[in-house]
Amino acid sequence: MNNFGRMFRVSIFGESHGIQIGAVIDGCPAGIPLTEDDLKDDFARRRAGGRGTTPRVEPDLPKIVSGVFRGKTTGAPVTIVFENTNIQSDDYDNLWNHPRPGHADFTARQKYGGYNDPRGGGHFSGRITLGIVAAGVIAKKIIGPASVVATLIEAGGSKDIQSAVEEAIEAKDSIGGIIECCCTNIPVGLGEPFFDSAEALIAHMIFAVPATRGIEFGSGFRAAAMKGSEHNDPIIDKNGTTATNYASGINGGITNGNDIVFRVPIKPTSSIGLPQETYNFKEKSVSTLQIEGRHDVCIAIRIPVIIECATAIVLADLMLQEQQRSRVF
Amino acid sequence: MNNFGRMFRVSIFGESHGIQIGAVIDGCPAGIPLTEDDLKDDFARRRAGGRGTTPRVEPDLPKIVSGVFRGKTTGAPVTIVFENTNIQSDDYDNLWNHPRPGHADFTARQKYGGYNDPRGGGHFSGRITLGIVAAGVIAKKIIGPASVVATLIEAGGSKDIQSAVEEAIEAKDSIGGIIECCCTNIPVGLGEPFFDSAEALIAHMIFAVPATRGIEFGSGFRAAAMKGSEHNDPIIDKNGTTATNYASGINGGITNGNDIVFRVPIKPTSSIGLPQETYNFKEKSVSTLQIEGRHDVCIAIRIPVIIECATAIVLADLMLQEQQRSRVF
Amino acid sequence: MNNFGRMFRVSIFGESHGIQIGAVIDGCPAGIPLTEDDLKDDFARRRAGGRGTTPRVEPDLPKIVSGVFRGKTTGAPVTIVFENTNIQSDDYDNLWNHPRPGHADFTARQKYGGYNDPRGGGHFSGRITLGIVAAGVIAKKIIGPASVVATLIEAGGSKDIQSAVEEAIEAKDSIGGIIECCCTNIPVGLGEPFFDSAEALIAHMIFAVPATRGIEFGSGFRAAAMKGSEHNDPIIDKNGTTATNYASGINGGITNGNDIVFRVPIKPTSSIGLPQETYNFKEKSVSTLQIEGRHDVCIAIRIPVIIECATAIVLADLMLQEQQRSRVF
Amino acid sequence: MNNFGRMFRVSIFGESHGIQIGAVIDGCPAGIPLTEDDLKDDFARRRAGGRGTTPRVEPDLPKIVSGVFRGKTTGAPVTIVFENTNIQSDDYDNLWNHPRPGHADFTARQKYGGYNDPRGGGHFSGRITLGIVAAGVIAKKIIGPASVVATLIEAGGSKDIQSAVEEAIEAKDSIGGIIECCCTNIPVGLGEPFFDSAEALIAHMIFAVPATRGIEFGSGFRAAAMKGSEHNDPIIDKNGTTATNYASGINGGITNGNDIVFRVPIKPTSSIGLPQETYNFKEKSVSTLQIEGRHDVCIAIRIPVIIECATAIVLADLMLQEQQRSRVF
Repeated sequence: MNNFGRMFRVSIFGESHGIQIGAVIDGCPAGIPLTEDDLKDDFARRRAGGRGTTPRVEPDLPKIVSGVFRGKTTGAPVTIVFENTNIQSDDYDNLWNHPRPGHADFTARQKYGGYNDPRGGGHFSGRITLGIVAAGVIAKKIIGPASVVATLIEAGGSKDIQSAVEEAIEAKDSIGGIIECCCTNIPVGLGEPFFDSAEALIAHMIFAVPATRGIEFGSGFRAAAMKGSEHNDPIIDKNGTTATNYASGINGGITNGNDIVFRVPIKPTSSIGLPQETYNFKEKSVSTLQIEGRHDVCIAIRIPVIIECATAIVLADLMLQEQQRSRVF
Repeated sequence: MNNFGRMFRVSIFGESHGIQIGAVIDGCPAGIPLTEDDLKDDFARRRAGGRGTTPRVEPDLPKIVSGVFRGKTTGAPVTIVFENTNIQSDDYDNLWNHPRPGHADFTARQKYGGYNDPRGGGHFSGRITLGIVAAGVIAKKIIGPASVVATLIEAGGSKDIQSAVEEAIEAKDSIGGIIECCCTNIPVGLGEPFFDSAEALIAHMIFAVPATRGIEFGSGFRAAAMKGSEHNDPIIDKNGTTATNYASGINGGITNGNDIVFRVPIKPTSSIGLPQETYNFKEKSVSTLQIEGRHDVCIAIRIPVIIECATAIVLADLMLQEQQRSRVF
Repeated sequence: MNNFGRMFRVSIFGESHGIQIGAVIDGCPAGIPLTEDDLKDDFARRRAGGRGTTPRVEPDLPKIVSGVFRGKTTGAPVTIVFENTNIQSDDYDNLWNHPRPGHADFTARQKYGGYNDPRGGGHFSGRITLGIVAAGVIAKKIIGPASVVATLIEAGGSKDIQSAVEEAIEAKDSIGGIIECCCTNIPVGLGEPFFDSAEALIAHMIFAVPATRGIEFGSGFRAAAMKGSEHNDPIIDKNGTTATNYASGINGGITNGNDIVFRVPIKPTSSIGLPQETYNFKEKSVSTLQIEGRHDVCIAIRIPVIIECATAIVLADLMLQEQQRSRVF
Repeated sequence: MNNFGRMFRVSIFGESHGIQIGAVIDGCPAGIPLTEDDLKDDFARRRAGGRGTTPRVEPDLPKIVSGVFRGKTTGAPVTIVFENTNIQSDDYDNLWNHPRPGHADFTARQKYGGYNDPRGGGHFSGRITLGIVAAGVIAKKIIGPASVVATLIEAGGSKDIQSAVEEAIEAKDSIGGIIECCCTNIPVGLGEPFFDSAEALIAHMIFAVPATRGIEFGSGFRAAAMKGSEHNDPIIDKNGTTATNYASGINGGITNGNDIVFRVPIKPTSSIGLPQETYNFKEKSVSTLQIEGRHDVCIAIRIPVIIECATAIVLADLMLQEQQRSRVF
C-alpha cells in the first residue's frame, strides 16, 4: 500500500538501487507556487554528510515532471522524481542466504516469494522517504500558517548527542534517538472521528517512516501514572487555550488549537560494523555475518525532516477535508 | 471517518444517548459461524461492574440484524446493533457553556458548528467502542489460529492495580494505566509497505480508541538508548525465529512470525469528582466546574478487550489482503 | 463492497427477509435539517402500489437511529433503518436447486460458497435500495439549489406506458423501460479527472441499482453516427452556456454548468408468471420452473426515484470534494 | 482523482506537453514476468499512423523505472514512464480566450482557477491514457486465462469503416464510432455487490477514457423493449452456461462465467478542421474559431486497445479481491 491520503493523496515508488525514486501527489490544490528550488532545503537536511551519517552522499536532485506549469501547481498530479546515480549491483545473493538482523531482508523475501529487489534493501530502503519529503514540502505550503518542526532531542540515551555519536563510531556500533515534533498555529477542528482522529493519522504516517518504534502524544506514557485532576487541561479563554497541554492539542481526536506535540523513538541503525551471529539459510545454521561498507551510525540524525514532512502531509489532508464544512445549510 | 479497512471494512455509528449504537462489517467472508452468544464474553469484559468502573451498568445485548443466515455469515454486510436503554436527557446545555476539560465538548462544538449531540459525549462517547468489540469478535475468528491478548499491566503508576484504584476512589480522582497486547501465531508476511505497515495500521486503530496516549512496539522508547548490536534480533532458525524480539515481530513493516508485542498508555478518566477550574463560555470567565454522577475511576480497566478487538480487526484485514499472493504466475 | 463515496460515504446493509435494512451515511455535514417525515415522499414514490407493481406493499417506515439531534444532522454518521415486517420464510431450498433465470441465485451461491441468504434474493433484493433512497434524500438537501429529476419515458418499447403495462399483465410476462434523468443548476467544476469524472461516478452508482443495463449521457449512442461539427456544443456566453448540449453538461469529466442528462435502460423484471425451462441442480437436468407469487410486471416504474437518489449521492460527494478548492494560496 | 483500484491500484500522471507521462501500479503481485518489450504490441495499437489518425506520431517508448527486478515484478510499485519528445509550446493563450467546443478548455480553467496546463489539453489529453495501457498490459497477465478483446464495429454510423473515414477526411470533419468489447474465460464470482458490481466498476473505468458517451451490457438499450420471457437467460448446465446471454455474463453484479460483452459509443473527435462559432472570452462575444494542426479524424480507431486495458485493470482488481474467499472457516 504505497498510497496515503483522502484528499491530498501521496503515492511513492522506487528502490534503493533502481532507476528512479519518486512521488505522485494527487489532489494537490491548483495555484501553489512550486519550483525544484523549494525542495532544496528539506532535502539538504535529509541528506547525509555530518558525523554519524553515512559517508556515501547522493545529490538527490529533485525533478518535477508533471503537475506544475509556469511555476504553480495545476491541480493535476504533481510528480517529483530522483534519478539514482549509484545503482551498482551489490553482491545481493548474500542477503538472500544470510539475511541481516533488523532489516527487512527475511520478511520481504518471504512475503514476495523471493521476487523482491534485495539490492540495498530495495523498496524497503530509507531512500524511499525521498518521496515523503517531496510531498511534505508541498504539504507545508498548504498548511501555512500552521507549521511543523521536529528535532532530535536525545541520542544513545544522552542529551549530548555529539558525544554519543562519537562513542558509537568508536565502538563500530550504532545508536538510536528520540525525535520531538511540534505543530503550531493549528486550526481548531482537524481530525475525523472515530477512525481518522488526528492522532490516528499522524501515528499511521509516522510508522511508515523506517526505524520508528513508537509514538506518544503530549503526556504520553507518563499519562498512565497521572491523576485526572493533573492531566485534564483547563481551558482558560474563549479560543480554547489551555493552561497545560497534556492533551497535545487534541481532544476526542479533533485539534483544539493548542500545539500538537509528540515524540518518536528511533531504533539504532540495523547495519553495524560489528560481526553478528545469525541464521544462514544456505549453510542451514547460525553463522557470523559481517556487513561491509559504511553506514549511518545514528540514522535518527537524518529523520527529523522526514517526521516533519510526514506530519505535514497528514495535516494538509485533514485541512482539505475540513474545508467541506464551510457551507451553511 | 467512521469506516476502517480495505478488505475487512468496519463502519461504526451511534451516540451515547442515541437510539442505537452499532457496527456494519462489510467484506466479511462467508461461512463464519456467528451467533449473538459469541459476542457475550468480550462484551462482559468491556462492561462496567468491578471496583474502579462506573456503577452505571448497561446490559449491552447485541442483536445481529443482517449478514448472518442459519448461524453463519453470508458474505453480505454483518450489522450488529445495541439499543441504548438509558437515553434520558442530560442537562446538556451546561456542557455547551462550560465544556469539561479533557473531553471533546469544546472541539466537537467547534468542528460541527454547534450541531453535535452533546448528551453523554454523543458520538465521542466510549460507548461507541461497542461497535469495535462487535467487529473484533468476528475478526478474531478470521485470524485464528493467531490470537491477541491484552492485559492491564499497570495503573496509577503501580503494578498493584487494586490498591491504586482504591486510593483513587478515596481521592475522588481518576488514574491512568498501561495496557500490553501480545499477538501470537502470526503468519509471516502481513503488512503492506510503505504506508500500511503492520505497525502503522495497528497504531492507527489503537488511536481510534478513546483515552490512548501513545503506543510502542517491542523495544519502543527504550530503543532510543540501545545500541544496534543489542537491538538487532538474530535469526536462529529457518522459520525466522529470533533470539530476542525487540522488533516485536515486525521488520520493514512486515510480520516475521515472532510475537507482536506493544504497549499503550491510557490517560486517567477525564470525568472526576473533584471540582475543576475551567472556562465558562456563558459567563465569559474561568469558573468552577463540578461534574455530577458516578464515573469510571480507571477506564483503563475496561479497555484491554477493546485493544484486542481493534488489533484483531487490523490483522484480519491484513490477512485477507495477503491471500491475494497465493497465485502463481 | 457496500460502501460508496469519498467525503459523503454511504454504507448499506440488509436482506430482503432479514430483520433490518438500512444505510449509514458518514461524512454528512452538520446542521442539515432532517426528520423521518422528509423521507416520506421519496419512499412513497419507490413503494409499490399502482398497476404493474407488486400487490405486496410494505410500509417501509424509516427510523433515524443516529446522527440527528434536535432535528438536525450532527456531523456524526446518520443511520436510517427499516424493519422488515414481512420476513416469513420462503421455501428457499428450491432456489438452490433450481435457480431463477435473470436473478442472482446462481452467482450468489457460487460466490459465497452456498452461505448466502437466498430468501427473497437476500442481499441482492431490490429492497436494499431503500438505503440508497434514504441517503439520497439527504444528498438532495446538500446539493440544493441543484436538483435531479428522473422519469420513465418508455416501457415495453412504447411511450404509452399504461397500455404496455396492461398488455404485459395480460400475458403474465414482464417488460422493461427507459428512464431519463436530468440534473439542473449544476455548478461548474464538479468531477475529479481522470478516474472520478462526473460521468464515471454517476455510471458507477447507476449500475449499483439492480436491473440497469446501460447508461448514455447526452448524445450517447447517437454520438457514434454524428460528425464533430454537429456534436461540438458551441459556447454562447461567459457562463459557459452552450447552444446545444450533446455533452450533457460535462467536458473532460468536469461539469460545465449546463444540464446533465442521461438515460438508463431497465430490463424486464426477471420474475415472471410464465413457466421457464432452466437447469435444476438437484435433478441434474433442465426442467420447468414456475415462479409463484405476485411480482412487479414493470419494475422500471419504481426505479426513477432510486436513480434520482443515486445521482444525488454522487453529486453531493463531488460537491463536498470541490469545496476544498476555495482556498487561495 | 487519479488513482483507481482496491487491490490492484493504478495512479496516472502527466500532461500532453509535460516532461513525463506515466503510471504507478501498486498492489501488483510479485513474480509476473515483465519487460518493456511486453508493452510494445498494445502501444503499437494505440499509436497513431493509419488513415483517420493524426499524422503526428510519437514513439512512446515505455521505460520501467521501478518494481521490476531481473525481469519480474517484485511486489513493490511498478512505475512505467514515457518521455514526451514533442513538448514545444503551443500558443496556449488562445485556448484561454477562445476555448475549443467539446474540449475541457473551459471546464479545466474554471475548476482549477486558471492554473491548469492548457498546452495540448494538459492533463486532459488523450495521451494520458498511455498510463492506462501500461497498467492494462500487466493486468492482462494477471487475469489470464481470461482475456479481453475490443474492436471498432462501426464508425460514422456505418459498418464500412474505411469509407466513413475517407468521407470525413474529405469533409475536414470528424466522426464517432462504436466499440464492442468481449471478455472470455471469466471465472464465476467476480464483482462486489452492492456498489462494486462488475458492471459498475467496468463502467466507472470506461468513462475515465476520454470521448466515451455511454456503455451498455449485453441486451443494453434493447432490454427496455424486451419481455422477461425473452430476456431471462435459461441456465442449461451445471457450470452455469446460459442458452442466451442478454445478461452479458453478470447477474446481481457478479460474473456467472459466460462472456461479458459491452458496447461503448465514442464521440467524433472534438478538434476539427472546419471553422466553429463559439464564445471568445477576450472579445466578450461569439466569434469564429479555426483549430490549426492535423488531428485524428476518427479517434475511435485508436481507442479499442484502451478499452481492453481499462477493462483488464478492473478484472485484475476484482480477481485479486476475490481470492480472499478461498479460506475455509
